[in-house]
Amino acid sequence: MVMEDKQITILGAGLVGSLLSIFLAKKGYQVTIYERRPDMRKAGAIGGRSINLALSHRGLKALDAVGIKEKVQESCIPMPGRMIHDLEGNLDFQPYGKEGQFINSVSRGGLNELLVNEAEANGVKVEFEHRCTDVDLANASASFDNGTTVTADFLFGADGAFSALRSAMQKTDRFNYSQEYITAGYKELTMPPTANGDFALDPGALHIWPRGEYMLIALPNLDKSFTCTLFFPFEGPISFEALKTEADVTAFFNEKFKDAVPHLYNLEKEFFENPTSSLITVRCSPWVKGNTALIGDAAHAIVPFYGQGMNSGFEDCYVFNQLLEKHGDINEALLSEYQSLRIPDGNAIADLALYNFIEMRDKVADEGFILQKKIEKKLNQQYPDKWVPLYSMTTFSDFRYSEAHALGRKQQAIMDKVLEKPEIAQDWENLDLEEIVNLL
Amino acid sequence: MVMEDKQITILGAGLVGSLLSIFLAKKGYQVTIYERRPDMRKAGAIGGRSINLALSHRGLKALDAVGIKEKVQESCIPMPGRMIHDLEGNLDFQPYGKEGQFINSVSRGGLNELLVNEAEANGVKVEFEHRCTDVDLANASASFDNGTTVTADFLFGADGAFSALRSAMQKTDRFNYSQEYITAGYKELTMPPTANGDFALDPGALHIWPRGEYMLIALPNLDKSFTCTLFFPFEGPISFEALKTEADVTAFFNEKFKDAVPHLYNLEKEFFENPTSSLITVRCSPWVKGNTALIGDAAHAIVPFYGQGMNSGFEDCYVFNQLLEKHGDINEALLSEYQSLRIPDGNAIADLALYNFIEMRDKVADEGFILQKKIEKKLNQQYPDKWVPLYSMTTFSDFRYSEAHALGRKQQAIMDKVLEKPEIAQDWENLDLEEIVNLL
Repeated sequence: MVMEDKQITILGAGLVGSLLSIFLAKKGYQVTIYERRPDMRKAGAIGGRSINLALSHRGLKALDAVGIKEKVQESCIPMPGRMIHDLEGNLDFQPYGKEGQFINSVSRGGLNELLVNEAEANGVKVEFEHRCTDVDLANASASFDNGTTVTADFLFGADGAFSALRSAMQKTDRFNYSQEYITAGYKELTMPPTANGDFALDPGALHIWPRGEYMLIALPNLDKSFTCTLFFPFEGPISFEALKTEADVTAFFNEKFKDAVPHLYNLEKEFFENPTSSLITVRCSPWVKGNTALIGDAAHAIVPFYGQGMNSGFEDCYVFNQLLEKHGDINEALLSEYQSLRIPDGNAIADLALYNFIEMRDKVADEGFILQKKIEKKLNQQYPDKWVPLYSMTTFSDFRYSEAHALGRKQQAIMDKVLEKPEIAQDWENLDLEEIVNLL
Repeated sequence: MVMEDKQITILGAGLVGSLLSIFLAKKGYQVTIYERRPDMRKAGAIGGRSINLALSHRGLKALDAVGIKEKVQESCIPMPGRMIHDLEGNLDFQPYGKEGQFINSVSRGGLNELLVNEAEANGVKVEFEHRCTDVDLANASASFDNGTTVTADFLFGADGAFSALRSAMQKTDRFNYSQEYITAGYKELTMPPTANGDFALDPGALHIWPRGEYMLIALPNLDKSFTCTLFFPFEGPISFEALKTEADVTAFFNEKFKDAVPHLYNLEKEFFENPTSSLITVRCSPWVKGNTALIGDAAHAIVPFYGQGMNSGFEDCYVFNQLLEKHGDINEALLSEYQSLRIPDGNAIADLALYNFIEMRDKVADEGFILQKKIEKKLNQQYPDKWVPLYSMTTFSDFRYSEAHALGRKQQAIMDKVLEKPEIAQDWENLDLEEIVNLL
């Protein structure tokens, strides 16, 4: 059987499903994507999850492999660091990495449309308004709410955190699965351009108002607006539940996010009209059953705090494509290697993302944390191959997430000891860096 | 509304569902149980999970509260300890607790029939052959595969590890859920009475052939047979997968379970004809949604290695009944207290049960473990209120599982240090027990 005769079904025309389809089409497979929602190119802005995303090295690497990195970068806004806003509105810029390293604010809707167009240009068929209701794992066949059933040689579930393929897998014996929600949810708010048509804040940063148990963040959009997101407990004394009236919201924002308030559009109205969404982490194993495989959020939905949801999904596609080149076709050896590589990495980035909520909402405002960043920067400058800070390993490198996670734990244990030294705040520039690096 | 007008639906006429129905009926509720399987009293032996179970203090306490402890005990075989079988067939009896403490081998089928009869005698209606296909959480209504839908004031899911109620809950926002399988499965084998109608082994013990990564166990039945269960890896060099022929099975059993082989009935045939079953742990939170609640395995399915699956489910019923007496009716305060008490205890016994597989299959044959048991026995004799061994807390006490788990960890840390002492194997009788107890 030549590859051109091989039919592949992909559930989900989101970011990961459409990128995967391009990789597979370029290898010669006949690919059809089935998507629950209407065509986003006709329906205008798509609903669902966050409006903009942070695209970084892993995602760009995958886009580059299908030749569309430059095209995507045209719509990116580089964010070389975090801009921390304190209660008084004082600003502190913290670079994410080295000079010239940055993450990219990109519109989810725009990127998704570009990928679907690109998929179709590569011969992929995309069928919208097909909600999958059941999957036959052995036969790689999917049934849809319109009564049709399609059978292929192989089926991918790129159908997100509430994947229909994964639901089918969950009913089989010995399928390990967990879904866990954090106690905080999120709400998006709009920060439009200023009266004279400018960005309301510096567009060259991801803005954070870290407030301990919660935070507000803002990412720039191409239309010079920012999308702000409040990550906030659902219940408790300071929570979505506790802010009951417009006056409560006004008072709370004036106290906690004073410098953001003048720029927010119709805050009180948006606060009560925009949805409050929950934040799930999904882990499962195996990712492969019969002639089907999970990929992206369907396999490993994570919280958004490391900006790695899309990037890790794109890296799944990249790795799958590398394995296709190694094994020649989708076979048992490939599938076994795919899941044995990516399951530990999916679990690692899930852990890292959960941890990064604490870092973003709390630690970035902490003196010890800021000092650690300075020391690590020096370590990295002097020993660029030996000491790469965890954030950089995750965001700007090809380190496997699981390796970055393990190495990060080791680094943190070393840094905890360094920061315990008396007078470290004064003496940190005199540290014996070689001694520290040798502890790794 | 008086209680007599309150309708309660219970999904599942297994051990927990039928016991719960008795508690509720005795409080005056109108209870109907819907059970997927046919009436076990007509269909003969019921299928499904293990044939016999170890009933201990928590289960007996709950049975006593509905006045049927003595009736159940008539069908119990006391097992005051473990009988360890080494490779040569040498025996070592290890008491479970103090003089007079024992666990009870009881037939799942017999106990279930007794409970269903008792439920009906208390006015509970039991509808068999009703498989629940969907639950409406807010309305406490359940739909069944025969097309009927019933609505009640409250609905319990006592429908086991693959609960339909829990499936419905899993689709709601912010429901935390995990299902995890261990890498071993199990297979039941029959050890009939001897030719002259006697037990083939001492019936006053739970027999264990601990072999490191796997084990065989045997529990006595009233008909003087034993039910043996092999807990064994699914895959790997020594596994179900690796034993491919009858000759493989014969050779393996002759090498590893030499003294059991002469007593096993048709070993090779049963080995390939009896099912190999998997072992799941389920955790979730919340256990209450709308007018529904989970109980027993539906809320916290655990592996069988602590003999606490049924006991913990019965204790759920006991605690629920205590809360009913405190709160007067099933209301928000009761439900909130129910889950805040029982979720941590369900998680604790899940952890303990997973750990006990290692203890049973491996540690019971270990000299350090045996020495620890001796030291702990002395500690308990001298300080009965201060030092209760973990096994006794779990099996013979009312300690909350979560408290037993926490205290057990503390004890183990202390014992680890005690066992590190040089010459401890010789000098253990001279230990300063007061010093050890004061470390707690």
